[in-house]
Amino acid sequence: MKNISFRDVAIGDGFWKDRQKTNAEKTIYNVRDRFAETGRFDAFRFEWKDGMEKKPHIFWDSDIAKWIESVAFIIEKEPRPDLEKQVDEVVDLMEKNQQPDGYFNIYFTVCEPGKRFSNRDWHELYCAGHLTEAAVAYYNATGKDKMLKIMCKYLDLIDRVFRVEDSAAFHTPGHEEIELALVKLYRCTGEKKWLNLAKYFIDRRGMQEEVPEDYWCSSRYFQSHLPCREQFTAEGHSVRACYLYAGMADIALEYDDEALKKACFALFDDIYNKKMYLTGGIGQSAVGEAFTVPYDLPNSRAYTETCAAIALVYFASRMQKMKVDSRFGDVIERAMFNGVLSGVSLDGGSFFYKNPLEFLHAERERNKGVPKQQEPFPEPVRQRVFDCSCCPPNITRFIASIGDYICGEDENTVYIHQYISSTVKTSRGEIKIKTDYPYGAEVDISTDGSFRGKLALRIPGFSKDYYALTVNGAKASPVIENGYAYIDIDGASTVSLVLDTAPKAVYANPLVNEDAGRVAVTMGPLVYCAESVDNGENLRALKIGATADCRTEKNDELGTTDIIIKGRRLTQNTFDGGLYAYERNYEPCEIRLIPFYACINRGECDMTVWLVSE
Amino acid sequence: MKNISFRDVAIGDGFWKDRQKTNAEKTIYNVRDRFAETGRFDAFRFEWKDGMEKKPHIFWDSDIAKWIESVAFIIEKEPRPDLEKQVDEVVDLMEKNQQPDGYFNIYFTVCEPGKRFSNRDWHELYCAGHLTEAAVAYYNATGKDKMLKIMCKYLDLIDRVFRVEDSAAFHTPGHEEIELALVKLYRCTGEKKWLNLAKYFIDRRGMQEEVPEDYWCSSRYFQSHLPCREQFTAEGHSVRACYLYAGMADIALEYDDEALKKACFALFDDIYNKKMYLTGGIGQSAVGEAFTVPYDLPNSRAYTETCAAIALVYFASRMQKMKVDSRFGDVIERAMFNGVLSGVSLDGGSFFYKNPLEFLHAERERNKGVPKQQEPFPEPVRQRVFDCSCCPPNITRFIASIGDYICGEDENTVYIHQYISSTVKTSRGEIKIKTDYPYGAEVDISTDGSFRGKLALRIPGFSKDYYALTVNGAKASPVIENGYAYIDIDGASTVSLVLDTAPKAVYANPLVNEDAGRVAVTMGPLVYCAESVDNGENLRALKIGATADCRTEKNDELGTTDIIIKGRRLTQNTFDGGLYAYERNYEPCEIRLIPFYACINRGECDMTVWLVSE
Repeated sequence: MKNISFRDVAIGDGFWKDRQKTNAEKTIYNVRDRFAETGRFDAFRFEWKDGMEKKPHIFWDSDIAKWIESVAFIIEKEPRPDLEKQVDEVVDLMEKNQQPDGYFNIYFTVCEPGKRFSNRDWHELYCAGHLTEAAVAYYNATGKDKMLKIMCKYLDLIDRVFRVEDSAAFHTPGHEEIELALVKLYRCTGEKKWLNLAKYFIDRRGMQEEVPEDYWCSSRYFQSHLPCREQFTAEGHSVRACYLYAGMADIALEYDDEALKKACFALFDDIYNKKMYLTGGIGQSAVGEAFTVPYDLPNSRAYTETCAAIALVYFASRMQKMKVDSRFGDVIERAMFNGVLSGVSLDGGSFFYKNPLEFLHAERERNKGVPKQQEPFPEPVRQRVFDCSCCPPNITRFIASIGDYICGEDENTVYIHQYISSTVKTSRGEIKIKTDYPYGAEVDISTDGSFRGKLALRIPGFSKDYYALTVNGAKASPVIENGYAYIDIDGASTVSLVLDTAPKAVYANPLVNEDAGRVAVTMGPLVYCAESVDNGENLRALKIGATADCRTEKNDELGTTDIIIKGRRLTQNTFDGGLYAYERNYEPCEIRLIPFYACINRGECDMTVWLVSE
Repeated sequence: MKNISFRDVAIGDGFWKDRQKTNAEKTIYNVRDRFAETGRFDAFRFEWKDGMEKKPHIFWDSDIAKWIESVAFIIEKEPRPDLEKQVDEVVDLMEKNQQPDGYFNIYFTVCEPGKRFSNRDWHELYCAGHLTEAAVAYYNATGKDKMLKIMCKYLDLIDRVFRVEDSAAFHTPGHEEIELALVKLYRCTGEKKWLNLAKYFIDRRGMQEEVPEDYWCSSRYFQSHLPCREQFTAEGHSVRACYLYAGMADIALEYDDEALKKACFALFDDIYNKKMYLTGGIGQSAVGEAFTVPYDLPNSRAYTETCAAIALVYFASRMQKMKVDSRFGDVIERAMFNGVLSGVSLDGGSFFYKNPLEFLHAERERNKGVPKQQEPFPEPVRQRVFDCSCCPPNITRFIASIGDYICGEDENTVYIHQYISSTVKTSRGEIKIKTDYPYGAEVDISTDGSFRGKLALRIPGFSKDYYALTVNGAKASPVIENGYAYIDIDGASTVSLVLDTAPKAVYANPLVNEDAGRVAVTMGPLVYCAESVDNGENLRALKIGATADCRTEKNDELGTTDIIIKGRRLTQNTFDGGLYAYERNYEPCEIRLIPFYACINRGECDMTVWLVSE
């Protein structure tokens, strides 16, 4: 199955159109302005000298690269001369400052010129990867190939130094990214050498110990503990890991490499069954921004970086091409509606780097009592920019290209993976999807007169026991395979799918210690949470039972549909100011739950996804 | 009120007699042998040279000091020539190696002679304090005053250097202990100068910033953030803190110092109402072995050092002299039956340093996934000796002197604080206490014919709503004040107190996040726990309701009375190998709970005090 690119998709009115509007009209400028203020654009002038302020950082190239890629995705759909002009200026500076041998990196040209290719953790190949992705996207959007040529020249150098001569101080990137970028470049240019280089980096990884001397962490941090084809458990820095796994899946598909496919499936299973938060967040510890061990899913201390949830979507969307299985679409959906989207504020102006499933001020107080903690409790404060500001431009490019995840097709079938109002060009003609999902239950799909073949609709995991499917008004009897409902379409048709978007309680596997005795509430793909701004302080004192005791309510302030659930609140009245009591009392209460993606948009407050359960 | 010393108490058959037997016949030798193997006794020869093995550590003096004090407490009750001979040998070496000016410290004479009194965190005054306590105890037990004289000579030097000349590189001890030791020395010798010096250290503390340069921690760690009389919240290293607070309480009492008393009451309240585990354990974080913030009581990562629980008893027993209030006796009882006693194995051969309320192998797995963590999850393994082996000889001296906590008296009243079978000499004649407490509910007390006055019995917090009290067979109508039942006794009488030792569920204040939705089970003063060796893996999958569904059962292997409670176990069958499910199933089960003090005596296993609650 091949994916249908967002380039062939027009997003229609609805949930994601609103997000794209905020993204294209606000977030893209907010990110740009913060990057300008912090010197990231000026850095491309290569004029920084010792003693000056705003010293370029080793990953600034990649920050601007993702911003350029975001701009490209936006102008693919609508002209934005102001943004395009600014990109052209950056590209001109790149051309001017590219080294004669093709090398392009701000930090290692301007700040530490002697240290080129000397430490695998210094993000050089990572920056090259992001600049390559940006160059491809910008060429696709505008037809301008200057940046593409700059990057091809640089990548020729990288190919020579790393693959042909093997003369750098390290052999594979410390932060993976270039692998999947090279595959994109190959698909754009048709030049096989880029695919070869991507495969080279994957073949070479883990073949020898590659941890910089005195480094604080192990080779697992870099996914270098084993050859890629022998990696069956997700390890180390979770963004690096999933960028690598995405690259592995690309190469597995391109080369029909069974050993790589086997590793990819095992890695996905390990994340899906043992290491993924309900929100689609991954990376259980701030220490190494890393995966830890199976079933270890602390809520308050979840690292769950926005970039990691995005990286998981990249990985899952490639797996989806390898095998039609609703688990992949389920993960993409879970991440995009929750652990990714929580990364940007509703107004598009500020961001989370970490997206934990719980903020409790009582726990954060502990940060004061336990100094220099490696895993501090995160603060419920969205920031306009970060020192390491990888997440904001990652989310802008993700939202701008959300159309990438809607459809796929193969010789017989068009697959609908995600329910987003849109018009999608397929080889069988146009498909129109119209829905209020996720707040509405109904999805209406219409096909062209030219459509002959199968339509396969993903039945989300939450709805597998109840859904209604009609074709041209008649109840359909689809064939269900791996979570997809297959129906035959012959010409212009209207298909209606009604999903089960009633609020549901979710429980965690008993092996997840942190969620023992707790329950989360979901509605369709949305994970809900309780905030103290609605429910008072001390969210752990709340207790809820069945979702039968709930109703939904529009929330105009947040633009959400909230869930109001009857529950009980443990009172102080038996404790007499002390810690322990032989009796406890509850008082009845109503608890307002809002979608997780909308959390912490009304100032600092406490928040929790997993509530104490009756 | 003054305490009645263990020297005037003969422990009778029962719970604590058994512990004292194991302590005096096994533990004292086990500790001695481990200390001998590791070179701690040989260190007193002052023969260590650079390049030799078994380099003395800065706190080895204190390890042997506490062992000597333990021996003194044991031989106070029964002759032990072998132990006494060994102490005499150590004291002879002390005499031989004391420096001409009185200084006595192994490390700073043998290993780093130039660094005497140069860093307040290097435990010199702490060692001096423990050696002083040992000298007093050994003199009391044997009448031999050699060690006492050695220490007085050393303390004269300390008095000169610190108080008179103020010429050391620091002003107050980094690890408090000498304060309370000096008060003991004053009470033994009657020499006011020792009390003055103790008061000096307390008056001086916190008057200026005293943190060694580049030190990892703040002045709170050393309780030096404020003058003692302005300290109202328990802060920093919890053993240091409670040794200090005990010394403060001593000085407050001796000088009738209202400001110090006020601080002591506030500090006790802060611990009692906000920072104490159900087991009487204190110190919520391994980082700094320290108190953190109110209501922060993590179970698995509880530091709860054995020494800290002992230190809390020292503090509470001094507070008890300041005010008759059952809260103090409740804390002493809670700690001694739980968080202190868990520190030694049932066979007296191995020890816990940390006494967390939960061990889960699934959490410990995280130690592997999160390298170099400052707060690793503790291992459920008792050790025979530690590099820093303060706890083993602390528990030997504590158990040997348990008689210290039974009674007190003032001009009108004899107070019975703890229910331990014993014969107690009071100024009103002998009192005999006979009980199977804590496994039995009844306490029988008899007084001499000479007894005229009031007898005050502590009514433990767990029994305040139900107890039966008779005097000479007739129901008594005691006056209840601050948790004590006062009765008038006129001559030889028998008093019977029946307490409510039925199993009870205990709940934590809703502000304690970690215990939300959980319940602990207690029986009398004993806190119970579930172990995986009895209940299978995955203790967090267990759920219990009311204690009405329970029975008790003798456990011959452990010598305990266990609680068997009906509960439910969350099954895997709705999860299909995955993490999340919309349904959950429980299966009924019986859960065996054993007393916390008996945990981890049958090999490594999981253990939890706070179970998920219906």
